[in-house]
Amino acid sequence: MVGKMAKVNVLGAGSWGTALSLLLHKNGHQVKLWSALENEVKMLNEKREHESKLPGVRIPEEVEITTDLEGCLRDVDVAVLAVPSPFTRSTAKQMAPFVKEGQIIVNVAKGVEEDTLMTLSDIISEEIPAANVCVLSGPSHAEEVGRGLPTTCVVSAAKRETAEYLQGIFMSPVFRVYTTPDILGVELGGALKNVIALAAGTADGLGYGDNTKAALITRGIAEIARLGTKMGASQETFYGLSGMGDLIVTCASVHSRNRKAGYLMGKGYTMQQAMDEVKMVVEGVYSAKAAKSLAEKYDVDMPIIMEVNKVLFEDKPAADAVRDLMIRDKKVETPMLPW
Amino acid sequence: MVGKMAKVNVLGAGSWGTALSLLLHKNGHQVKLWSALENEVKMLNEKREHESKLPGVRIPEEVEITTDLEGCLRDVDVAVLAVPSPFTRSTAKQMAPFVKEGQIIVNVAKGVEEDTLMTLSDIISEEIPAANVCVLSGPSHAEEVGRGLPTTCVVSAAKRETAEYLQGIFMSPVFRVYTTPDILGVELGGALKNVIALAAGTADGLGYGDNTKAALITRGIAEIARLGTKMGASQETFYGLSGMGDLIVTCASVHSRNRKAGYLMGKGYTMQQAMDEVKMVVEGVYSAKAAKSLAEKYDVDMPIIMEVNKVLFEDKPAADAVRDLMIRDKKVETPMLPW
Repeated sequence: MVGKMAKVNVLGAGSWGTALSLLLHKNGHQVKLWSALENEVKMLNEKREHESKLPGVRIPEEVEITTDLEGCLRDVDVAVLAVPSPFTRSTAKQMAPFVKEGQIIVNVAKGVEEDTLMTLSDIISEEIPAANVCVLSGPSHAEEVGRGLPTTCVVSAAKRETAEYLQGIFMSPVFRVYTTPDILGVELGGALKNVIALAAGTADGLGYGDNTKAALITRGIAEIARLGTKMGASQETFYGLSGMGDLIVTCASVHSRNRKAGYLMGKGYTMQQAMDEVKMVVEGVYSAKAAKSLAEKYDVDMPIIMEVNKVLFEDKPAADAVRDLMIRDKKVETPMLPW
Repeated sequence: MVGKMAKVNVLGAGSWGTALSLLLHKNGHQVKLWSALENEVKMLNEKREHESKLPGVRIPEEVEITTDLEGCLRDVDVAVLAVPSPFTRSTAKQMAPFVKEGQIIVNVAKGVEEDTLMTLSDIISEEIPAANVCVLSGPSHAEEVGRGLPTTCVVSAAKRETAEYLQGIFMSPVFRVYTTPDILGVELGGALKNVIALAAGTADGLGYGDNTKAALITRGIAEIARLGTKMGASQETFYGLSGMGDLIVTCASVHSRNRKAGYLMGKGYTMQQAMDEVKMVVEGVYSAKAAKSLAEKYDVDMPIIMEVNKVLFEDKPAADAVRDLMIRDKKVETPMLPW
């Protein structure tokens, strides 16, 4: 028991939602886990384990698993929204009638809506004007959080009091939470890092080494920061847990779909062949398009993002993209610094 | 041939010096490679390969390999100093009589002198007041540069013209060079990242996952940046290629001695047992002491550096150190940002 006990319900029973419901339960809170899928709820209530998404991790009986959305939103202190980003808007729409004024909703998914270029918290605020929308993000593979391995995240809210309240709700001896006021920076970093992970995977597939990968990660986050600051976020956020930290974890992971799809493209697969092989949604492919649109909208130089788009959508060979990145004009690393 | 041909000599025939001599030769420069060790020069002249330090990479006949230090410093455009940091001062002392006013010397080693807390460029400037001391740093495993894999670095000099001249000297289609005025930031990042690599290795040895490692990397560079900015360097530099980039490459590498020594300590070895097993100098152990002294001198909060020192020199169990890092006071990630 870490802070004061609260009612905290988690909407979305994927790997991350399930892992968070366990963490919150261990922190002493009263927890319900909601899924829209009858089958999933039935299976979870029978097996008390999400065998496909979070294998080997037992869900205690005290965590109530349900399809009752209204019941999960009445008299709750915190609602954690953990549905995948393509379902954020539709789920928020369903939630809206049951949400009271000032309700804290913590979004933990990552993405930018392709058509509107809106962040997920913007979407939730649009669909649920009554909500106080916050975000939790960071380098946090669900499997590792499920196993209780030491993990850090940031929580961001419009008001410091809300952020500190949520820090108390989530923090535990194995889950350290920092606060930040920069919601936009946290969301953009989380959404756009998948494009860089795709590029890093491609470099691996081409047989390049750690030098190339570190270059793509470091220069990749630099261009995301360039975009983000122009959009009103703070540079420091991109170098924190939700930006650089999350990117490092994604690029290191052999499980990452983004990294794997990139790897296959480095081996000569087309985008479609790579998607077919990975057999799951590769977020970086959609984020790449959104990132390109944002770069154009805000008139920001994003060479890695542009090359990833060419490889994905114009069949440019990946090796040519890397070559073109290497031989660009000579640049200063830190254009803001006076000589 | 990339820029204008120059006379560029490399002092120090370890893996990095040898790899750089090849890169500079391929760039069309006239290159000599110097070593203080007669045996090493004899072996390299016979075999044209550094079998122990850069195996599988052939050194072309046009690269002259020599023990003649004076000959390497007379009428040279650029001298690259690539001796390991414990030999920087003594080598600089030997070089001094042969160095002309304004001679460009590019230091490529990393470290902070334990007794004086001086950076390597400060040491070189002290020993060779005539020199124009510059630095080259970044995520650049020598083996990968030797094999021509895409790599990026930063070069830093007191004057923009010098930095741009060196950018032209080193840059190639597989070696992209950025410039920056922040010599101190480049040097501090390179020197202190080994302490964080040691911590990341320890987390691996403890059986923790990618989440923990990403947390140590991200929060580790944050505390190095905190120290560095107080010393007069720029925050951005620590998030660039010579800071974060180099740290990522070090933590990813299975070859890194720092990571390996940390790994063994995570498995329960004492510092001395780990050093004996690794059988080579583990720079992070010395840098850890220097970092602690700097933190105290500049009154900067560096929790990871302090815990690494306790594990290294006070036999604190590594798992206790991680636990103590996780349960510290609740913090804001970005203390500079207004709410």
